[in-house]
Amino acid sequence: MEFKLPPEVVDIINGISSMQIRGASKIAEAGIKALSIVAENSKVESPEEVFEELDYVAQKLLATRPTAVSLPNAVRYVMFEAYKAKENGLKAEEIKARAIDACREFLRRIGEASVKIGEIGARRINDGDTIMTHCHSTAVLNVIKTAHRMGKNIRVIVTETRPLYQGLMTAEELEKNGIPFTLIIDSAARFLMKKVDKVIVGADAVAANGAVVNKIGTSIIALAAYESRALVFVAAETYKFSPETLAGELVKIEERDPEEVTPANVFRRWKYGSVRNPAFDVTPPEYVDLIVTERGIIPPQAAFTIIRDELKDMPYEFQMKYSTYWERSLEV
Amino acid sequence: MEFKLPPEVVDIINGISSMQIRGASKIAEAGIKALSIVAENSKVESPEEVFEELDYVAQKLLATRPTAVSLPNAVRYVMFEAYKAKENGLKAEEIKARAIDACREFLRRIGEASVKIGEIGARRINDGDTIMTHCHSTAVLNVIKTAHRMGKNIRVIVTETRPLYQGLMTAEELEKNGIPFTLIIDSAARFLMKKVDKVIVGADAVAANGAVVNKIGTSIIALAAYESRALVFVAAETYKFSPETLAGELVKIEERDPEEVTPANVFRRWKYGSVRNPAFDVTPPEYVDLIVTERGIIPPQAAFTIIRDELKDMPYEFQMKYSTYWERSLEV
Amino acid sequence: MEFKLPPEVVDIINGISSMQIRGASKIAEAGIKALSIVAENSKVESPEEVFEELDYVAQKLLATRPTAVSLPNAVRYVMFEAYKAKENGLKAEEIKARAIDACREFLRRIGEASVKIGEIGARRINDGDTIMTHCHSTAVLNVIKTAHRMGKNIRVIVTETRPLYQGLMTAEELEKNGIPFTLIIDSAARFLMKKVDKVIVGADAVAANGAVVNKIGTSIIALAAYESRALVFVAAETYKFSPETLAGELVKIEERDPEEVTPANVFRRWKYGSVRNPAFDVTPPEYVDLIVTERGIIPPQAAFTIIRDELKDMPYEFQMKYSTYWERSLEV
Amino acid sequence: MEFKLPPEVVDIINGISSMQIRGASKIAEAGIKALSIVAENSKVESPEEVFEELDYVAQKLLATRPTAVSLPNAVRYVMFEAYKAKENGLKAEEIKARAIDACREFLRRIGEASVKIGEIGARRINDGDTIMTHCHSTAVLNVIKTAHRMGKNIRVIVTETRPLYQGLMTAEELEKNGIPFTLIIDSAARFLMKKVDKVIVGADAVAANGAVVNKIGTSIIALAAYESRALVFVAAETYKFSPETLAGELVKIEERDPEEVTPANVFRRWKYGSVRNPAFDVTPPEYVDLIVTERGIIPPQAAFTIIRDELKDMPYEFQMKYSTYWERSLEV
Amino acid sequence: MEFKLPPEVVDIINGISSMQIRGASKIAEAGIKALSIVAENSKVESPEEVFEELDYVAQKLLATRPTAVSLPNAVRYVMFEAYKAKENGLKAEEIKARAIDACREFLRRIGEASVKIGEIGARRINDGDTIMTHCHSTAVLNVIKTAHRMGKNIRVIVTETRPLYQGLMTAEELEKNGIPFTLIIDSAARFLMKKVDKVIVGADAVAANGAVVNKIGTSIIALAAYESRALVFVAAETYKFSPETLAGELVKIEERDPEEVTPANVFRRWKYGSVRNPAFDVTPPEYVDLIVTERGIIPPQAAFTIIRDELKDMPYEFQMKYSTYWERSLEV
Amino acid sequence: MEFKLPPEVVDIINGISSMQIRGASKIAEAGIKALSIVAENSKVESPEEVFEELDYVAQKLLATRPTAVSLPNAVRYVMFEAYKAKENGLKAEEIKARAIDACREFLRRIGEASVKIGEIGARRINDGDTIMTHCHSTAVLNVIKTAHRMGKNIRVIVTETRPLYQGLMTAEELEKNGIPFTLIIDSAARFLMKKVDKVIVGADAVAANGAVVNKIGTSIIALAAYESRALVFVAAETYKFSPETLAGELVKIEERDPEEVTPANVFRRWKYGSVRNPAFDVTPPEYVDLIVTERGIIPPQAAFTIIRDELKDMPYEFQMKYSTYWERSLEV
Repeated sequence: MEFKLPPEVVDIINGISSMQIRGASKIAEAGIKALSIVAENSKVESPEEVFEELDYVAQKLLATRPTAVSLPNAVRYVMFEAYKAKENGLKAEEIKARAIDACREFLRRIGEASVKIGEIGARRINDGDTIMTHCHSTAVLNVIKTAHRMGKNIRVIVTETRPLYQGLMTAEELEKNGIPFTLIIDSAARFLMKKVDKVIVGADAVAANGAVVNKIGTSIIALAAYESRALVFVAAETYKFSPETLAGELVKIEERDPEEVTPANVFRRWKYGSVRNPAFDVTPPEYVDLIVTERGIIPPQAAFTIIRDELKDMPYEFQMKYSTYWERSLEV
Repeated sequence: MEFKLPPEVVDIINGISSMQIRGASKIAEAGIKALSIVAENSKVESPEEVFEELDYVAQKLLATRPTAVSLPNAVRYVMFEAYKAKENGLKAEEIKARAIDACREFLRRIGEASVKIGEIGARRINDGDTIMTHCHSTAVLNVIKTAHRMGKNIRVIVTETRPLYQGLMTAEELEKNGIPFTLIIDSAARFLMKKVDKVIVGADAVAANGAVVNKIGTSIIALAAYESRALVFVAAETYKFSPETLAGELVKIEERDPEEVTPANVFRRWKYGSVRNPAFDVTPPEYVDLIVTERGIIPPQAAFTIIRDELKDMPYEFQMKYSTYWERSLEV
Repeated sequence: MEFKLPPEVVDIINGISSMQIRGASKIAEAGIKALSIVAENSKVESPEEVFEELDYVAQKLLATRPTAVSLPNAVRYVMFEAYKAKENGLKAEEIKARAIDACREFLRRIGEASVKIGEIGARRINDGDTIMTHCHSTAVLNVIKTAHRMGKNIRVIVTETRPLYQGLMTAEELEKNGIPFTLIIDSAARFLMKKVDKVIVGADAVAANGAVVNKIGTSIIALAAYESRALVFVAAETYKFSPETLAGELVKIEERDPEEVTPANVFRRWKYGSVRNPAFDVTPPEYVDLIVTERGIIPPQAAFTIIRDELKDMPYEFQMKYSTYWERSLEV
Repeated sequence: MEFKLPPEVVDIINGISSMQIRGASKIAEAGIKALSIVAENSKVESPEEVFEELDYVAQKLLATRPTAVSLPNAVRYVMFEAYKAKENGLKAEEIKARAIDACREFLRRIGEASVKIGEIGARRINDGDTIMTHCHSTAVLNVIKTAHRMGKNIRVIVTETRPLYQGLMTAEELEKNGIPFTLIIDSAARFLMKKVDKVIVGADAVAANGAVVNKIGTSIIALAAYESRALVFVAAETYKFSPETLAGELVKIEERDPEEVTPANVFRRWKYGSVRNPAFDVTPPEYVDLIVTERGIIPPQAAFTIIRDELKDMPYEFQMKYSTYWERSLEV
Repeated sequence: MEFKLPPEVVDIINGISSMQIRGASKIAEAGIKALSIVAENSKVESPEEVFEELDYVAQKLLATRPTAVSLPNAVRYVMFEAYKAKENGLKAEEIKARAIDACREFLRRIGEASVKIGEIGARRINDGDTIMTHCHSTAVLNVIKTAHRMGKNIRVIVTETRPLYQGLMTAEELEKNGIPFTLIIDSAARFLMKKVDKVIVGADAVAANGAVVNKIGTSIIALAAYESRALVFVAAETYKFSPETLAGELVKIEERDPEEVTPANVFRRWKYGSVRNPAFDVTPPEYVDLIVTERGIIPPQAAFTIIRDELKDMPYEFQMKYSTYWERSLEV
Repeated sequence: MEFKLPPEVVDIINGISSMQIRGASKIAEAGIKALSIVAENSKVESPEEVFEELDYVAQKLLATRPTAVSLPNAVRYVMFEAYKAKENGLKAEEIKARAIDACREFLRRIGEASVKIGEIGARRINDGDTIMTHCHSTAVLNVIKTAHRMGKNIRVIVTETRPLYQGLMTAEELEKNGIPFTLIIDSAARFLMKKVDKVIVGADAVAANGAVVNKIGTSIIALAAYESRALVFVAAETYKFSPETLAGELVKIEERDPEEVTPANVFRRWKYGSVRNPAFDVTPPEYVDLIVTERGIIPPQAAFTIIRDELKDMPYEFQMKYSTYWERSLEV
């Protein structure tokens, strides 16, 4: 069955699939908003139809970016509330209300998570620590800024983060907060690692075995930290934990525009050469000491437990229905 | 005693110390040329004075760049020939001639070494190999190009090599030679390492324990290769083997202009931040499988033997006199 | 109290203890069948006697093969259903019915598990993967065959698996399914490991710390995979997870007939020599990346959670009563 | 120029190339014998012709088995004596005599080496040691037997060594000498490694970086020894040290008849399967503690020094001329 | 609000803060006793006041030793029972009774835990094992003594445990029980490690990632065990598992009187020197094979699950209130 | 043939064998002195008798302490000079004179070596370094004191070094020299290792593979340094390099009086316990970064080259004759 989607929802779906909407939290928020709008504007009147309409947009959303992790987590959460409402025999309007509530609840969770991570993570920072970070992560900056506000004397080493130099955004935010920092090129990470007490990075996704998908370069920095016995902390909201990505290595890594790396007029005239621009890499759990979530600090091996807790009341088929490339890969 | 130096020699000394003359071979060649000019134009007539005049310019040269390795190696070689000539009772003109010959000999050695390395190294490349390289090294390119000419089907992964993007020079040279390659950002090295059979890099210096000083980023790539069981080959002429740098870690690493990393208008206004731009790093011998020299392939632990062979007839005090920051550090 | 056992049950007990019934699933199925027959034919009429009779055969079964893991898991499951029925005040016939249902349920679980493992595991196989396997495991073959059916282009390296050459059975099954493979001797595993993406093996038992007991040779292949950074997957039904074997190393490893290794006429005349033929070895959890169970993929450290979930409602004494060499070893 | 070879020499050349003559020492002895026969029967009368005739057969020999290591070592040794004789202006007959002497000398060296290795190696065995060995090596057996004769109480674990079961030959020799031993399948090596103090194996070739080429299975056993902190000793005559094989990994590993692994009627009917039967593998120097040579015990990194000593007076072109697949690979 | 504390309670508080009361169990028992006395003697009559009075003493207790772990665990347990009683609307006397019961229950748990650990751990000891232990731990001795009573033939290596030589107490207890042992200095641990099958140590605290805080020296011995592939078992009651110490490294390690190390008259006259005497160190979870608790044997990564189970019904704010340096560090 | 030894020589022999003369340099000096006295007082008149008399005392000396390394090195050096003199047909008195000269030369070498090591090693210390040392070594203190005199700001962590507390001697010497230090118990070494840049220790012997025999505890500290990526430097005079100890592990480690560890009245009454007190342990070369000798800094793998250079002109039988437990072990 086909449903007509409100224009805002269409915009969201296009925005996600065209990568105008970007970043794990932003994508999840947009997806939630789309579901919320549909629930609010729904005209259908039977419980089954309500669920079907929500499911219609949910599937559209899931199809936009098969590699995002926060999106299916958000969609699955809302849809499960709607599903239970329907199964419990609630009426159409009640189901819509429940879905809207679930949307609000998930948005709140997103909003609070990175603040909470800042608080929890900051307690793990020692006075005098030198911290290295890569790319630009709100949760990581919250950890650093909270530690700084607590009066801990810290110093940050920021990698510039080629190709898009997000390290400069991190640098500017540290500058604004009066936190001493040093900017380096990415490949100087090992050179300075002996002075580093902790590496703290964000995550785009955390796999069930504790592997961390994050900005390209994270895994080689984590390897250098492991070599030097510096601790590696990952700041990751639990909605980034991915049931679909159990084995880490199997996450499909997006490759982005080669022009981010080098001008098109350079590489276009190459007959023998090309540019590869993978956006993320996978850090194996052996190189991660702790994951700081909004629910507390966990060893990476406990990612499995976090995911199981989230899914434990959901029937297996239900989980599958709202997963992106997991079950789906079977259908190919 | 003071000597008046010919203007060309003054130019060379200034060129090295101002970094206009750059790169291990170029610096050595320039130093040799300076000694040669002095010997050719020398007006002094006693053997002692000849040696003293040569020594005068030698010390001037050594003072220019205390971190260069090829320079004291070149100077020491020439001065030892002059020294032996003097000790053996040769006349002033004969000493000058010997010094000029030694200059020629060393220049020939520089000229032939990287070609020979290309030949020897190429034999170690297997048909079908994927090779990763970092920065731009003539010796490495000679290995790759020779292997390609031998008909071996190879493919090269080139890191862009921030901050100065020398990887693009390497890319262009591969393009010109019809050798397939892929350009990546430096921090993507680990992401692609599983496909790599061999990492081949050059060296600015090789320490007596086999540690390799090379362009910043080399050591983190070597670490990633070690993790993945890819082989690491270093292409290094023996005049880059440094008696002064026995313990690797103690090599003084040059820090270069922060503007190479980020525009001055960005970092100058920072009150809390700064930029560090180390030019080299040190790869420990555990991460190096083989060093390809013009005298054959050696395990890194044999660097000690190579250096000992070079110096074995030279009195200890003589070695010290023509070393840059070794014995000298005592005088501070 | 003594009970007379039906002849079929006696046959099963003898079959297991004489090793005619072999393999983790077969032994569990046989044990379940024995309990089911006893429940179906039970003549006793008080709830206590029903439980006692079932317990009588349960203990006989547990005494047959103290090193099997699936057997106590199966027996414990059925006995717990009977126990709860009795404790809840059910009547004798109801207890028998519950026991029979529990038998059916466990058999269903055995039947479905390896199919489900095939489905779940196959999703983790990438197109183009080279897979190494050792010995002959239905669950592993299900993973490989399902991946092949999904259109993934894979290639399998099969170790012959001395002394009984079960690798040839695996080879024949791959041949039948049109899956390309290469047969090698066991000790060539490291030689070919660089080409391997994943090692997939079965398990005879999984200890609570994630250590895997499997066919002799598994642990040395896993070690070689670990060295080469190839992933190691273990396909194991959850009824092979052993509460009794928490520390892996302490599992008693069966030694089998030396004639499997070399003809008796060879070794019998040796005065100074003997043959050892251990049937299994223990792969430590550090060398295992993932365990594929019918309930999903878990990191090996989560084996503890799987076991705890299974046992969580069972009183400690009850667990002990139906464990083979755990509590029992105290009585010696 | 073409020379007519004596029938015995033709037989030797055919014997080596058809693998009827096998084993590093046997091949070297046969090659030496061929050169000796040619020198003894040479009819040519000018010094140049003598050398040319010897060179003619030398090149024929080198062409037989490009992967043997002892052969070019033997040939190079003899030819260098002939070469020096010629260069020093000796007469034709004197050159022949020198070549014959060099043949005798090299044969003596082969004959004495494994006895000497037995003596030197035995001193490193402790009373009470458990030793694991793989395959059948005379030098290794000499070490074990000498230690036993010295009254040291030792016990040997022998791997059967698929596919040709040379472990049984080792077992029989230990039996004959009254040395206690245990025979196991190859893949049980890790299972028993915790009880092992030292692994002692032979070598087919030792590369200049200390990598050891030996019977397939050696490297995985060495890996397991390394994991368990058991020492690994390699018993290797210095004529097995290969200048051509500097990088270990680049040694061309012979693949042998698949029928050694499994009967032809099994694998011939396979459409999707095949058998691979590599004869050797390469143990990296990190896994080797000591190499016992007839000149003393060396750490593997000293292989480079041993080779350099052997070659130090030989012009580079000369070395190349009598190397098998080194320089030659350039000509392809 | 202020409450007057009974003199016995004041004594306990002083005893803990002055370190007269020492050791994880003793401190927990004393804290429990203080709470019990207060509950028994409480004169207040409203439910709120009862809770407030208990909370008053609880906070006093928590302030005594911010680095003890068993103390907040004990206090939190009792206070939660009182809290639930109050929240459920029970009367003042009932709340007191509940608190007193909770005290009794926790004391019982302390009393039983180390016996149970002895039983569970002893099953993991093999006949013939050589066990190394450090310091003096009742739980460890229970494991050893139970294994000995079970007839297992074991031998113990005891480190003297500088600076206070608690190893001698362990030695005397082994002597009394007729268990063979060898006393060594602490730094000889690696020398004898090759003979060791298992290292068994106690714990002062177990962090949520499985890191173990124990007597100084434990971590270097565990490192040596890891190097030699000896197993490391930690015997630890679950009330030593610390929610506050999630990241191990961040545990504040007490430094004790330098006179324990060397006489004051020695170090007091030093102008340039001082003595450091850290009481504990942190063993990372990678070096721990198993933790033996009274609830069973767990892999160190499961510490997280044990802690979560303990806390799962407690509101976050409640947890924080009865934690020592966790939340509190924010207030500084 | 028997010779009558001067009373001073008898005293020296007894002094060494009763351990009154102790320490590698002291023992070597005493041995040299004994040879020198014998040469000076020799009454015999034929060259053969002179050599025989010297040999007589040499063998007596070698028999005193079969585990000392400096002693046979000293004896071998002197005897070889006497041997060459005899072989070259010198007269009796000339042989005596040569022996006496050789004695002087070796004493001078001993005297100068540790000063030179101080100079060379100090250059490798960086301003700001934290250095850990174990036990009391003159050569190590020379390195530290020279670096301090050069104006380098360093700080030393000194382990007390049970059982004889030589660390206190080191502490006192640092105090006297105004060098800041911290004294710790031995087992706290890992706790403080993260702050350590370099561990510097002496050596009793260096084996040909670079393994270092030194005071018990050295190897576990080196292991902890290796884990933390702190550098390990060994300060060792070349006369401590042992041809006899090629395989490190095979060095016979002296066990000393248990009363050094614990009072006799404690352990004598033990029926089940005993004390072990090994004096040294063996640090494998993997954990050693550099060895500082009086001839320069070498990687541990170059120990082989150092030994070979020392022995290269000595016939094998001669080497054997003046080695302690090498060849000799064959005779047992």
